[in-house]
Amino acid sequence: MPDKRSILETFENNYPERDYAITHTAPEFTSLCPKTGQPDFAEIVLEYVPDRRCVELKSLKLYYQSYRNDGIFYESLTNQILDDLVAACEPRWMKITARFNVRGGVSSTVVAEHNGS
Amino acid sequence: MPDKRSILETFENNYPERDYAITHTAPEFTSLCPKTGQPDFAEIVLEYVPDRRCVELKSLKLYYQSYRNDGIFYESLTNQILDDLVAACEPRWMKITARFNVRGGVSSTVVAEHNGS
Amino acid sequence: MPDKRSILETFENNYPERDYAITHTAPEFTSLCPKTGQPDFAEIVLEYVPDRRCVELKSLKLYYQSYRNDGIFYESLTNQILDDLVAACEPRWMKITARFNVRGGVSSTVVAEHNGS
Amino acid sequence: MPDKRSILETFENNYPERDYAITHTAPEFTSLCPKTGQPDFAEIVLEYVPDRRCVELKSLKLYYQSYRNDGIFYESLTNQILDDLVAACEPRWMKITARFNVRGGVSSTVVAEHNGS
Amino acid sequence: MPDKRSILETFENNYPERDYAITHTAPEFTSLCPKTGQPDFAEIVLEYVPDRRCVELKSLKLYYQSYRNDGIFYESLTNQILDDLVAACEPRWMKITARFNVRGGVSSTVVAEHNGS
Amino acid sequence: MPDKRSILETFENNYPERDYAITHTAPEFTSLCPKTGQPDFAEIVLEYVPDRRCVELKSLKLYYQSYRNDGIFYESLTNQILDDLVAACEPRWMKITARFNVRGGVSSTVVAEHNGS
Amino acid sequence: MPDKRSILETFENNYPERDYAITHTAPEFTSLCPKTGQPDFAEIVLEYVPDRRCVELKSLKLYYQSYRNDGIFYESLTNQILDDLVAACEPRWMKITARFNVRGGVSSTVVAEHNGS
Amino acid sequence: MPDKRSILETFENNYPERDYAITHTAPEFTSLCPKTGQPDFAEIVLEYVPDRRCVELKSLKLYYQSYRNDGIFYESLTNQILDDLVAACEPRWMKITARFNVRGGVSSTVVAEHNGS
Amino acid sequence: MPDKRSILETFENNYPERDYAITHTAPEFTSLCPKTGQPDFAEIVLEYVPDRRCVELKSLKLYYQSYRNDGIFYESLTNQILDDLVAACEPRWMKITARFNVRGGVSSTVVAEHNGS
Amino acid sequence: MPDKRSILETFENNYPERDYAITHTAPEFTSLCPKTGQPDFAEIVLEYVPDRRCVELKSLKLYYQSYRNDGIFYESLTNQILDDLVAACEPRWMKITARFNVRGGVSSTVVAEHNGS
Repeated sequence: MPDKRSILETFENNYPERDYAITHTAPEFTSLCPKTGQPDFAEIVLEYVPDRRCVELKSLKLYYQSYRNDGIFYESLTNQILDDLVAACEPRWMKITARFNVRGGVSSTVVAEHNGS
Repeated sequence: MPDKRSILETFENNYPERDYAITHTAPEFTSLCPKTGQPDFAEIVLEYVPDRRCVELKSLKLYYQSYRNDGIFYESLTNQILDDLVAACEPRWMKITARFNVRGGVSSTVVAEHNGS
Repeated sequence: MPDKRSILETFENNYPERDYAITHTAPEFTSLCPKTGQPDFAEIVLEYVPDRRCVELKSLKLYYQSYRNDGIFYESLTNQILDDLVAACEPRWMKITARFNVRGGVSSTVVAEHNGS
Repeated sequence: MPDKRSILETFENNYPERDYAITHTAPEFTSLCPKTGQPDFAEIVLEYVPDRRCVELKSLKLYYQSYRNDGIFYESLTNQILDDLVAACEPRWMKITARFNVRGGVSSTVVAEHNGS
Repeated sequence: MPDKRSILETFENNYPERDYAITHTAPEFTSLCPKTGQPDFAEIVLEYVPDRRCVELKSLKLYYQSYRNDGIFYESLTNQILDDLVAACEPRWMKITARFNVRGGVSSTVVAEHNGS
Repeated sequence: MPDKRSILETFENNYPERDYAITHTAPEFTSLCPKTGQPDFAEIVLEYVPDRRCVELKSLKLYYQSYRNDGIFYESLTNQILDDLVAACEPRWMKITARFNVRGGVSSTVVAEHNGS
Repeated sequence: MPDKRSILETFENNYPERDYAITHTAPEFTSLCPKTGQPDFAEIVLEYVPDRRCVELKSLKLYYQSYRNDGIFYESLTNQILDDLVAACEPRWMKITARFNVRGGVSSTVVAEHNGS
Repeated sequence: MPDKRSILETFENNYPERDYAITHTAPEFTSLCPKTGQPDFAEIVLEYVPDRRCVELKSLKLYYQSYRNDGIFYESLTNQILDDLVAACEPRWMKITARFNVRGGVSSTVVAEHNGS
Repeated sequence: MPDKRSILETFENNYPERDYAITHTAPEFTSLCPKTGQPDFAEIVLEYVPDRRCVELKSLKLYYQSYRNDGIFYESLTNQILDDLVAACEPRWMKITARFNVRGGVSSTVVAEHNGS
Repeated sequence: MPDKRSILETFENNYPERDYAITHTAPEFTSLCPKTGQPDFAEIVLEYVPDRRCVELKSLKLYYQSYRNDGIFYESLTNQILDDLVAACEPRWMKITARFNVRGGVSSTVVAEHNGS
């Protein structure tokens, strides 16, 4: 996990006096099911209100790609992404929405949120 | 009903210190009309905030499938699914939305909610 | 109007201890314009939280069909359906949404609501 | 049936030297099921290439409305509408597409065509 | 403007004891740009809670048509329609939403609201 | 299989002198996977040009329902439905399109056609 | 009509050695019903293969606007637009598709085509 | 930046006594990425409640076009547009929503808001 | 490549006397760009008319998954999948449609077809 | 124009023995109107059957971007893109479809095609 976190880069927020919201929607997320080894596919939506640092977009893409061959459960994945991104940019508020494709006739979504103060 | 409940399995919530939401959408639900014996079709949406236990996805699918040849009314079905899932994982909050296909030119939805504390 | 109301049947709510919501959507409603005699077409959405009685679905369909050759204005229709259904099942809350097709380049919706206590 | 045909009016085609196509789409058709007396709902699409006469639009609407309280099967309805409209305006080509709403979980479409020469 | 207002007709609200909402959606509105004389096209949505009078639908259509060859700005148009309709039926609440088509690559919406008491 | 075929009923085609097309779309088909016993879900589209007999709609619904607890592969199912319906009404032309829901991230469609002469 | 035609301007086709197709879609067409004086609304689609001249886009817009206060039937309108545009640019092939909004619950489309040689 | 601001023009709000909302949606915004020089594409939605001045629509279009060959980051762009428009018309409330196209498999949205008092 | 082909399994076609079509749509395909190492995402549609053998669905899924960490160009990928599947089941006809996600603002589709005789 | 053509790069077609089709869809094309200097926006769809050379995707993107500040008419743009791409890769068949955004209430599409032999 420290390795994953080291992928994430940030840059200075030039408008810290204003609360404003940034959303990055990544429909091409894929990881592996830890039970079966089968690929999972998801859309990850990151929403946050920056404090002093913003998440750099290309490093975010590489961070998501680092899960490509990892086995991880839906619930852990969502919470871990939130924890890593909070650690990276210490936002005022952040939410991760992970929408997983149909498996066994059921699609799943996990939503986790962080309040910075 | 005890038999149905025994199908449901749970696993430990690894992030109990955080309130987060899980949604499982199952568009392939089918049961029978208790009056006519004709098949009913529905989409069942389960939303919940876990406390100590999460619902295991494969057991949820098998639980839904156990209704395949049961005769049961819309209102009872929705409330019974809610009661069984609450009993299984004792969530902080849970909601069941059951959307039934058109019958006699009318489609129906039943929504029931549980607050855990 | 007493005749219309006598079409509606109800059954006992088996989950009176819980506030839950039922929606019946009927896209095939038709009546007549009282001015011109021309057919009107609408989608009627019934939403309610039952108290002791639920509306029986087949009787609801027949109730709607009883308007087929009646001349009635949009506003009266919506309020009358609400009054009849409230009288039939005495719900904790009920809402009728009637969406009428385009006439003279204009489509119309009327929404009326009842609070049971 | 002679009565129904007498509802249809036509007007002179001012561009008989050119083959061109006219489509009238009527999503508000309703008649009754001859077995059960229950209402049927359909969208009727009329397409034709006029010869010397065009179908007058308001009379077409009244013609469709004349089925409101008639009991008639899907297949007969479609062919009868085609026969009546062919008799009324003797087109070079005509097609009737009737799309019926879901009944018993099944929706139906009937398509019949006439070649004028 | 008095002339425009005189087009609007109202009828008595038969359910004044209940707060209910009426929406009329008119996607065929057209007026002229006061600068260029070019036609503007808009969808006008009227929502209101009637008090003692309801807006008669056909007169509403004629009222909208009276703008066909008038030059008027978006903001004035929306507020003027609201003022005229408030004057005509003195509603408990009313909202006008005017959605204008793309001009110079930009589409516009103006929303104005009135509270009756 | 003889039992399934005996469910299908037909009625006389009143317009045998005209080639016309009938489509019945059934989005609520369900059977079982013969390998795993898991439910399969499909939409079955029947298109045909009748000769002397038409397929009776209610019997078609019951015929489809007879597969509810049968284990059968996609390819066999589609061809068997075609064979049974051809045997029942001896059409001039018939096509079956079976669209199966996602399994293992893959959705499938099988299309089979019969020419009557 | 000569006046309308004089609005249309053309420019030289720089690629006359190649058959290629141009489509202009105008969703904001409006004229008047010659019977009732009520506004009609349509989308006019012009498709053509130019020969030596192309239709200038701004003049096309003005040509369409010239119908704003004219009373004209659907069938005449479509054929007249085709005749005017053929006269203006003498194309190798041209088609006009006019899709009219719902009137009396029925929407209409008229399609007329010209072959240049 | 002073140059950009000088492009924006305003006109007097004729209805200052009423709080009402104006939305301008511009789906054709394009600028350059300051890192790579590659074009970025966005939809810019401006929503505001005017005080004494409204934003003139054509000048808004020219203002947006002035970014065509500028290199600027998503977050700066959104906040700068908000600052410029607030300076130009001093609104009671204003919000800018900038939706950027997919880059590296990720689409982004930035939302910034201003309260006038 | 021999390894990939060995993943594919087939089963006997029980209806070889009839030409019928099978489609398998796989929206979760992913491989790597051979130049940049970045992930590519695609939907692969396989359509074919079987001769003596059908493609087994689970082996098809595993075959597609075998590309997960391979670097391969769009054009080669599509043709190679076609060659492998033709070799595996020797169909009468087969088509592969590969729809790739947006890269650099451009989405791509490659379609290749095989005729068996 | 020679400069533009020099941007385009190609690579060897590894499957020249098979006729197969490649489509590249670029929804982010922008150029300038030669009359007004205002930006035009279009989606350019390139479809072709390669002979010995395929169009390299990144060079195609750069080629499209080279029009960003050029003034050019719709018809010339489409034909010139076709000529440049035909010159670059000498395909067996090629088609360019250019869909331009609404201007003055009218959207336009130009389609040009080349046959290689």
